[in-house]
Amino acid sequence: MMTIIAERINMTRKSIREKVWARDTAFIANEVQQQEKRGATHIDINAGADPAKEVEDMKWLAAVVKDATQLPLSFDSAHAHVLEAGLSICNRPGSIINSTTAETKRLADTLPFVKAHNTGIIALTMDDGGMPETLEGRQTIVDKIADVMGSNGIGLDRVYIDPLVRPVSTNPEQTVMTIGGVRYIKTKYPAAHTMVGLSNVSYGLPNRIHVNRAFFALLLEAGLDGAIIDPTAEGMAGIMLATLALLGKDEFCMNYISAAREERI
Amino acid sequence: MMTIIAERINMTRKSIREKVWARDTAFIANEVQQQEKRGATHIDINAGADPAKEVEDMKWLAAVVKDATQLPLSFDSAHAHVLEAGLSICNRPGSIINSTTAETKRLADTLPFVKAHNTGIIALTMDDGGMPETLEGRQTIVDKIADVMGSNGIGLDRVYIDPLVRPVSTNPEQTVMTIGGVRYIKTKYPAAHTMVGLSNVSYGLPNRIHVNRAFFALLLEAGLDGAIIDPTAEGMAGIMLATLALLGKDEFCMNYISAAREERI
Repeated sequence: MMTIIAERINMTRKSIREKVWARDTAFIANEVQQQEKRGATHIDINAGADPAKEVEDMKWLAAVVKDATQLPLSFDSAHAHVLEAGLSICNRPGSIINSTTAETKRLADTLPFVKAHNTGIIALTMDDGGMPETLEGRQTIVDKIADVMGSNGIGLDRVYIDPLVRPVSTNPEQTVMTIGGVRYIKTKYPAAHTMVGLSNVSYGLPNRIHVNRAFFALLLEAGLDGAIIDPTAEGMAGIMLATLALLGKDEFCMNYISAAREERI
Repeated sequence: MMTIIAERINMTRKSIREKVWARDTAFIANEVQQQEKRGATHIDINAGADPAKEVEDMKWLAAVVKDATQLPLSFDSAHAHVLEAGLSICNRPGSIINSTTAETKRLADTLPFVKAHNTGIIALTMDDGGMPETLEGRQTIVDKIADVMGSNGIGLDRVYIDPLVRPVSTNPEQTVMTIGGVRYIKTKYPAAHTMVGLSNVSYGLPNRIHVNRAFFALLLEAGLDGAIIDPTAEGMAGIMLATLALLGKDEFCMNYISAAREERI
């Protein structure tokens, strides 16, 4: 079962920010519904435009999204009080905190919160030493994340480990390490989920959609079961469902055929 | 280096047949140029509409395509006299015969011909026992093909071995075997090329392009270095170049970036 966190409602994007500040409920509700139609399992909310307004914007967004869908939300902030504000409006089963790193302070801030609210948590494989440049560096941090979740009483079935996607244009060898990271997580910690911020891979390249589609297929082959994407982007839902069918993870291609019939791909 | 055999000029398609019989040179020349622009390395010609006209149509097509491009041609017929007719018009370095099986009679008919005209040859992994259902069955026929080419003095650098693509809708496990076949060929016979009739995978499914793109990515990851495709189909050239970049086979993404700049993807 794939976890698809739909990323469009992000106030660091100017087009979204303006609509939120105009309190345009219909626009945001439509964003939710378009993403849900294309296969989102979670609607991400990022209210990080103006620190002075982040709590207020998060609350408004959470309320609008809550009314527009039955899906759980993903709350995208580095600030505990913002996450708290969002969850106070809508904490459905399956809610996800996006995200923590494995830095000591971030873990200390986030994990009690995750435990108290019974949410899922995305954990990035970076720690006080920064971003690992190697596969081994990622593996060490994956082990540390699994360990610290256990010692904090957070089951791995609520943990989405993100082995960091870096731009292929500047770090070609990093792509292979991300794929290796996914394989490592699913092999060593099958109860945990994997997660990637997929489109980072194409940063700095033209016609990014081709690179995003291709990387999605390669990651799924490695066992990826979660991604933060724009599911409305042309061909993204299609390549996901097609790849799963080709990998024998969609009996008789029924999910694929249903999606085509319902014009979701 | 990828071998991309462009499949559009195929008279079993009604739209092409009508234009050929109308001797519409401009239409065919445009088909050639569109395919070349999107990355074709060979232009395939199939004149198999009416057996009584196949030689004549093959000659006309070969002459038109020859004038429209500097690329080598791929001659798609099961009949030696038709192949002979095509090659008599245009046999550039790199020409390919499409195709033979490993059936005893087909090999006996085709290989002297390939040797005499110094062409490449696509060899399908099926023999007098039919189409293999297993990976092991494919491997046995791959070994037989490599052996018979050697004993006929045909270098493996001129051989494109096709491990058979079957529709995922009816044979889900066959997909994995085709991927395994590609991996086997490139591992055991690195001098040989691989080739697939890619779009067979999506036969019988809706919105086939998603499945074709996804399978292309998975096959490239397994080492595929040749495919018979419609390179003008939306996103096919794009996913190929993107996947090669992600696999570290396109230094600094230069091929990808050039293709985008020249609006080839």
